[in-house]
Amino acid sequence: MLEFGSETLVITHDSMAEGTHWPEGADPFDVAWKLVAVNLSDLAAAGAEPIGVLLAYSLGDSDGDRRFIEGLSAILGKYDVPLLGGDTICARGSRTLGLTAIGRATSSPVPSRSGAKVGDGVFVTGDLGQAMLGFEGIEAHHEAFARPTPLLETGRALAPVATAMMDISDGLLLDAMRLAKASELTLSLESAAIPVAQRSRFDDCIRWGDDYHLLFTASPAATLPIRAHRIGEVTARSDAPVLLDNSPPNGSLGYQH
Amino acid sequence: MLEFGSETLVITHDSMAEGTHWPEGADPFDVAWKLVAVNLSDLAAAGAEPIGVLLAYSLGDSDGDRRFIEGLSAILGKYDVPLLGGDTICARGSRTLGLTAIGRATSSPVPSRSGAKVGDGVFVTGDLGQAMLGFEGIEAHHEAFARPTPLLETGRALAPVATAMMDISDGLLLDAMRLAKASELTLSLESAAIPVAQRSRFDDCIRWGDDYHLLFTASPAATLPIRAHRIGEVTARSDAPVLLDNSPPNGSLGYQH
Repeated sequence: MLEFGSETLVITHDSMAEGTHWPEGADPFDVAWKLVAVNLSDLAAAGAEPIGVLLAYSLGDSDGDRRFIEGLSAILGKYDVPLLGGDTICARGSRTLGLTAIGRATSSPVPSRSGAKVGDGVFVTGDLGQAMLGFEGIEAHHEAFARPTPLLETGRALAPVATAMMDISDGLLLDAMRLAKASELTLSLESAAIPVAQRSRFDDCIRWGDDYHLLFTASPAATLPIRAHRIGEVTARSDAPVLLDNSPPNGSLGYQH
Repeated sequence: MLEFGSETLVITHDSMAEGTHWPEGADPFDVAWKLVAVNLSDLAAAGAEPIGVLLAYSLGDSDGDRRFIEGLSAILGKYDVPLLGGDTICARGSRTLGLTAIGRATSSPVPSRSGAKVGDGVFVTGDLGQAMLGFEGIEAHHEAFARPTPLLETGRALAPVATAMMDISDGLLLDAMRLAKASELTLSLESAAIPVAQRSRFDDCIRWGDDYHLLFTASPAATLPIRAHRIGEVTARSDAPVLLDNSPPNGSLGYQH
């Protein structure tokens, strides 16, 4: 975040590496889509309106490059975001792509991870685990994995009422822990209230990333401008930053990379 | 460039790939320095004052990462530029690093490549070929190659009087061609007037990149705020975008990557 003239800029940069963030053989259209979507999702979580992106592109083969540009055009066109610049390089071996997204804050203060207050409700904007099921080959969830939706309008609507907000890129439990630590509080979640794409896979759904739903906190007095699922409450800091049905969650919290 | 409130943002992103932009075995301190310097040099050419950078970093080994951070801190400290954010990833194989630099324009219009006018003088800010000699192992020029200087103050001083400006990253002839094409004119250069680090290597010095001197055009009526070398004149568009002693230069123009 950057005060600039009378406005606040929100700037985000996420990179993706072949082999780590996408498998060899992935459709370059989807790689482009995701590279843009993950960055726009960060703007969404700040309630910011995108004003442009810069692309750092490592050339691949010419068919792949053409397909990448199609995907890039598709998502930039869909969200009406201009490509402002960037650079194109030849690199050897596996490729790393980067994107910088620049947005204009629409609400002050800009929601961050650190603003949650004791007594706030904890909310998510939709079902978790869809990207996981899409990754595993379930056709109905393919789009959620391959071409995720950055929740720009939702984020802008929530920014004035959310006390803290972030997008869920690395799994609910891990990202909830980050929000809790940044706010120096505990998020006390109820498993029955957490919306998941497949109840029998609950433990996986709350640990898998790539869903890009928004996780936010809001005062019990606030009127939410959109429908969201209340999954718990912010409590005073306890031994564990995240409690699930009053106990620390078992095992790994999520996807670390 | 981006109008934002009452101000103009200049945003630049350059990436560097292992094997292409730096050899395996290069000092990570120098890699960090150069990654920042090449981006600040782009801001310098726009007469912009840096307000921050975002880093896209692929992890290497821990000693190298530590050394990279030392180099990063050194150059950011030297130019008093904050690291605003970015991301760190694990990538397989050769690494690509990226940097986004954000600056505030100090002069309007912001100098670009396209503003040269017939009759303008063509200038460079210093000797070309120093980075080449440094690369080749000449101790006196090591710094010019390994830790180039972004000419931020020079660029800011020139911005109000330059009709067009850019930094010379890919060699004088190639970058002069780009400026000429963007301005739809011809740059007519005189070899005797071009300052080079080693006169016997003149042809190489005007084709090698990495010097980061500024190339600019200015009206004959302008008073330059700094010393610069007048290397030619802007003439009406002819068959060749760049003429050297009235003829198109022989062979390759410079370093394409």
